[in-house]
Amino acid sequence: VKKTVSIVGASGYTGVELVRMLLRHPLVELKHVYAFSSAGKTVAEVYPAFTKTTDLAFESIDNLAGDTSDFLFFALPHNESQKIIPKFFGKKKILDLGGDFRLKDAGEYERYYNAAHTAQELLPQAVYGMPELNAGTIGTAEFVANPGCYPTAAILALAPLAKNHILPDNVSIVSLSGVSGAGRTPSQKTHFAEANESVSAYKVGVHQHTPEIEQALGILAGKKITAAFVPHLLPITRGIHTTVAIHIMNNYTLADIRSMYAQFYSTAPFVRLLPEPPRILDVNHTNYCDIHIARDEHADTIVILSTIDNLIKGAAGQAIQNMNLMCGFTETAGLA
Amino acid sequence: VKKTVSIVGASGYTGVELVRMLLRHPLVELKHVYAFSSAGKTVAEVYPAFTKTTDLAFESIDNLAGDTSDFLFFALPHNESQKIIPKFFGKKKILDLGGDFRLKDAGEYERYYNAAHTAQELLPQAVYGMPELNAGTIGTAEFVANPGCYPTAAILALAPLAKNHILPDNVSIVSLSGVSGAGRTPSQKTHFAEANESVSAYKVGVHQHTPEIEQALGILAGKKITAAFVPHLLPITRGIHTTVAIHIMNNYTLADIRSMYAQFYSTAPFVRLLPEPPRILDVNHTNYCDIHIARDEHADTIVILSTIDNLIKGAAGQAIQNMNLMCGFTETAGLA
Amino acid sequence: VKKTVSIVGASGYTGVELVRMLLRHPLVELKHVYAFSSAGKTVAEVYPAFTKTTDLAFESIDNLAGDTSDFLFFALPHNESQKIIPKFFGKKKILDLGGDFRLKDAGEYERYYNAAHTAQELLPQAVYGMPELNAGTIGTAEFVANPGCYPTAAILALAPLAKNHILPDNVSIVSLSGVSGAGRTPSQKTHFAEANESVSAYKVGVHQHTPEIEQALGILAGKKITAAFVPHLLPITRGIHTTVAIHIMNNYTLADIRSMYAQFYSTAPFVRLLPEPPRILDVNHTNYCDIHIARDEHADTIVILSTIDNLIKGAAGQAIQNMNLMCGFTETAGLA
Amino acid sequence: VKKTVSIVGASGYTGVELVRMLLRHPLVELKHVYAFSSAGKTVAEVYPAFTKTTDLAFESIDNLAGDTSDFLFFALPHNESQKIIPKFFGKKKILDLGGDFRLKDAGEYERYYNAAHTAQELLPQAVYGMPELNAGTIGTAEFVANPGCYPTAAILALAPLAKNHILPDNVSIVSLSGVSGAGRTPSQKTHFAEANESVSAYKVGVHQHTPEIEQALGILAGKKITAAFVPHLLPITRGIHTTVAIHIMNNYTLADIRSMYAQFYSTAPFVRLLPEPPRILDVNHTNYCDIHIARDEHADTIVILSTIDNLIKGAAGQAIQNMNLMCGFTETAGLA
Repeated sequence: VKKTVSIVGASGYTGVELVRMLLRHPLVELKHVYAFSSAGKTVAEVYPAFTKTTDLAFESIDNLAGDTSDFLFFALPHNESQKIIPKFFGKKKILDLGGDFRLKDAGEYERYYNAAHTAQELLPQAVYGMPELNAGTIGTAEFVANPGCYPTAAILALAPLAKNHILPDNVSIVSLSGVSGAGRTPSQKTHFAEANESVSAYKVGVHQHTPEIEQALGILAGKKITAAFVPHLLPITRGIHTTVAIHIMNNYTLADIRSMYAQFYSTAPFVRLLPEPPRILDVNHTNYCDIHIARDEHADTIVILSTIDNLIKGAAGQAIQNMNLMCGFTETAGLA
Repeated sequence: VKKTVSIVGASGYTGVELVRMLLRHPLVELKHVYAFSSAGKTVAEVYPAFTKTTDLAFESIDNLAGDTSDFLFFALPHNESQKIIPKFFGKKKILDLGGDFRLKDAGEYERYYNAAHTAQELLPQAVYGMPELNAGTIGTAEFVANPGCYPTAAILALAPLAKNHILPDNVSIVSLSGVSGAGRTPSQKTHFAEANESVSAYKVGVHQHTPEIEQALGILAGKKITAAFVPHLLPITRGIHTTVAIHIMNNYTLADIRSMYAQFYSTAPFVRLLPEPPRILDVNHTNYCDIHIARDEHADTIVILSTIDNLIKGAAGQAIQNMNLMCGFTETAGLA
Repeated sequence: VKKTVSIVGASGYTGVELVRMLLRHPLVELKHVYAFSSAGKTVAEVYPAFTKTTDLAFESIDNLAGDTSDFLFFALPHNESQKIIPKFFGKKKILDLGGDFRLKDAGEYERYYNAAHTAQELLPQAVYGMPELNAGTIGTAEFVANPGCYPTAAILALAPLAKNHILPDNVSIVSLSGVSGAGRTPSQKTHFAEANESVSAYKVGVHQHTPEIEQALGILAGKKITAAFVPHLLPITRGIHTTVAIHIMNNYTLADIRSMYAQFYSTAPFVRLLPEPPRILDVNHTNYCDIHIARDEHADTIVILSTIDNLIKGAAGQAIQNMNLMCGFTETAGLA
Repeated sequence: VKKTVSIVGASGYTGVELVRMLLRHPLVELKHVYAFSSAGKTVAEVYPAFTKTTDLAFESIDNLAGDTSDFLFFALPHNESQKIIPKFFGKKKILDLGGDFRLKDAGEYERYYNAAHTAQELLPQAVYGMPELNAGTIGTAEFVANPGCYPTAAILALAPLAKNHILPDNVSIVSLSGVSGAGRTPSQKTHFAEANESVSAYKVGVHQHTPEIEQALGILAGKKITAAFVPHLLPITRGIHTTVAIHIMNNYTLADIRSMYAQFYSTAPFVRLLPEPPRILDVNHTNYCDIHIARDEHADTIVILSTIDNLIKGAAGQAIQNMNLMCGFTETAGLA
């Protein structure tokens, strides 16, 4: 008998990607999709791509109180899930795709998200859900905070260095994201004629994913890691590319470093170490994170490149990977 | 009376951009456009965009020997201009848009371009043509080597730091380029279905523009600068974006740094210091280089962002800017 | 001494393209740029591309009453210019880029634009400004209505057939437009992630440009022409492509038809008859309309293909072409 | 026990899409992937997206003679499959994705494909594989010719009109295709910088898919149908959009026409009749064909719009749909 799951905030790009993937998942049944403004419409009315594939309709979030699903996904904007999750905590398994429960330090949250945190008592209860780092803990968790899209690509790019204590205290991370990362609400920045044939950096030094990257790498490294994080908007729909150059790695050969990565990810089904620079093209519509490590000999610099699909490994796919672990399913179920 | 100019290698993307711009230039007359495979065809036959705007036809490069123009532009692939330029050196003013005469060190050339240099005696004669650095020298030069596209954006991004002796010895430069930078010859990498909706790094640590960046910054800084240069291919036609993060700038406030840039570029007509991160959109089809400087306070890091149109400020436009200086025209003639 | 011109509604995509082109026009001086929401900001603040190229600032439309320019451009949304133009009619030369004064039949206007027309007395005074059809009339006009973007490409594609009385009474027109045609206000339809990697038809049979096409072709043909017009949104920023297939042309050879077009456009500086299907690429950022005529022998069908840049020949460029005629300038001034 | 299948010509875009889909198909086992230039390389070496998903390697087509699979797919360029298929005909089930066996009239083939047909004796044996038209015949076929991409979208758009005897003898079809339709071999036309931000028609009146469309519609209509077919290249990777406007439908209301379509496709799992114009976005990566019918009342015209993913419903997906029928599987197996 299949587990029943529901999604709170199912009508955004992340939510609807989750709908798509859960409808195909062999071990769960998607029961309810709750939404705000789309409530009352069928999924196919809002997203014609779903015509003939599901009869599900978005329900008002008011119906959530009576939900009987075994598992709840939350795909809400910042500051929203913290208002609802406390009501369900301890009653059923919960996975939050938003940013409210990723940071252990409420001060950091308030600083970067420009909002108060009203459910700080749950912060210690939330397990950060990056299976490549802590699959075991996730496997026994009742409440998992799914990583952000940028952090997923950045942390996976650097985790082996952090774990092997060769990540410098300060690291610069250049990330490029497709426009779907900005969500479904139109804005000047995501207007086709403004985003197309262009690229620009934004939120330099103040992006809310910065402390999340620092927290995860800091835990692995056992020391404080400070990241200068520079996100850029790219004229593509999906995908994230991360580039990190680290100087003075001269005690380590390229083979040493590659071997660290191979070992670190030896049991990770969704990390691929490629012999060439990864292309966003090759990870789109998949749950893979592709990583390539190069060494610029003349500059004594290691360059790490990683790619993910921001909506899959950076959101819905990783959420299902976490759900699989939390429910005792095969980690890759529904994700191949 | 107008100066007469001709272009050798006029049928590639850079060459034809030069044709477009020179046809509009008020002070010169474009006499001959020499090409290899396109010889015998009109410009409009190869590029329909030129229909009704010019009757010029590509001539065989064999006709070049009898050329009587005052000024010659060379827009040839690597390793080609070094075979021809020596025949004209000293006889007329020359501007080379290719890579053959940018590096002073022939060994560096041979290492990065994988080819012998057969005109090394001219290397000391070639003036590196970046007007923002050395307009005076260009103004009296007979032979100018036009900078590469990536170096233009990278050097302009970092020159004020180098000049003010606060550029570190080692710097990592992340650059993003549109596909036109790869030229007009089709390849798997530039095939629409492979480049579109993707992004990937390439030639990490071995790109031929690396020593050019190091040379220019080293001269400004008065010390050896080593660059870890990571170029990426973007799914746009035109434009380059450069991102550099420099840690430990804590003796300098953001205002200090911005003030250095403002002073350094106070007389540069084509550099714009913007209050927000620059967008490729805003420089495309112009000769501008847009620069923005941000400071990530929590990471003690200065982030410098620059954008250019790779075919204009990164090639044909800068070539005309150099020609203007070499001919005693207003620097901005034909470029507004 | 230059003519002075001002723009009412200068901050949209059409308005700002007009700003760009008028700043470069050798015979006019751009005095005022009036706008609604952007009033008080410099042009460069709203469009960073204008940094260093102009100090003009958007002024409140309230200042318009005291305007002393010789010539006024109106680039306002539908239903707006009809409220203002009557105040200036007869006092200075006026060109309206909006849709309010293109249709002679107020009933058609009200049907297709879903709005009342409150300045119907001016409809007979407005000259429809398509120089390829009526340059003479435009040359003596005080008030010109600039054609819509789709109609420009469609009418130029079919005018020679209409004029030669071989256009059928009913014609189907398939048009493709870049997203800038939808203006600068963000919407779901023009959100990057919805428009990119897609294409879809819209407003089938009800698009407001339909009667404009029918009116112009009907006048040329001397009979009622009915157009089934099917516009589509394309994932490009600029450009319009029009495709018309007309069956039963068997009394005319391809040479006959091409000869009609060559004759009809023999004095039109901005129409180019190409030997191959036109590409949007070749007209973008120009005032050209490219046309190609093919004949499908086996199907007894003539296929006419045309392309324009929707913001130039489809808006700002054609407006300047009209202004040139109205002011007695060379038709191509400022447009090469 | 699963059926075993192999692919001849597996390294092009169509072939590799077939690999991707067959690897996920629950009822078959993909045994061999034969290729020409890629032989000897793993699928993942040629397409990094397959890393970790399959260990299959491309084999030389020389190995094909000893193939023991139950089912063979051919995804070869024109004129190639006719050389090989005769050797296997009658020995195992065969599906050809190329154009060699779609046309019943060898003269038409030779005219449109500019090549002789050397296996004409098999033309009567090949069943045209469009399940929405003839699922029954496909179900008992040993040899099926898979439709072309453009014909799939065009025929599905018009089949109900043909079947109901209201399709005119002459019809104009405007189709738009993504660049992957041109295959994997780079060319000037598919070079990113030439295809991007553009659109252009090509092969007007001479495209090889024309007689295929005419043949299928003619059979349904019971009369000769002549199509003026105008294909266009769009700057997207995947997808086809078809637009057909048919004048003088005044005996039929929109409801009549929609009802014909609903009935015609009542049992077709992959045709969706949408209430709004279809978007390529909604069919990409699926086997659906989306259709919308509009009526332009003022022009007495019915407009039919259809979309497919050219690599799925237009190639690999439809091939699997046909295989499912030929093997007695559920029609939708492996396609959801």
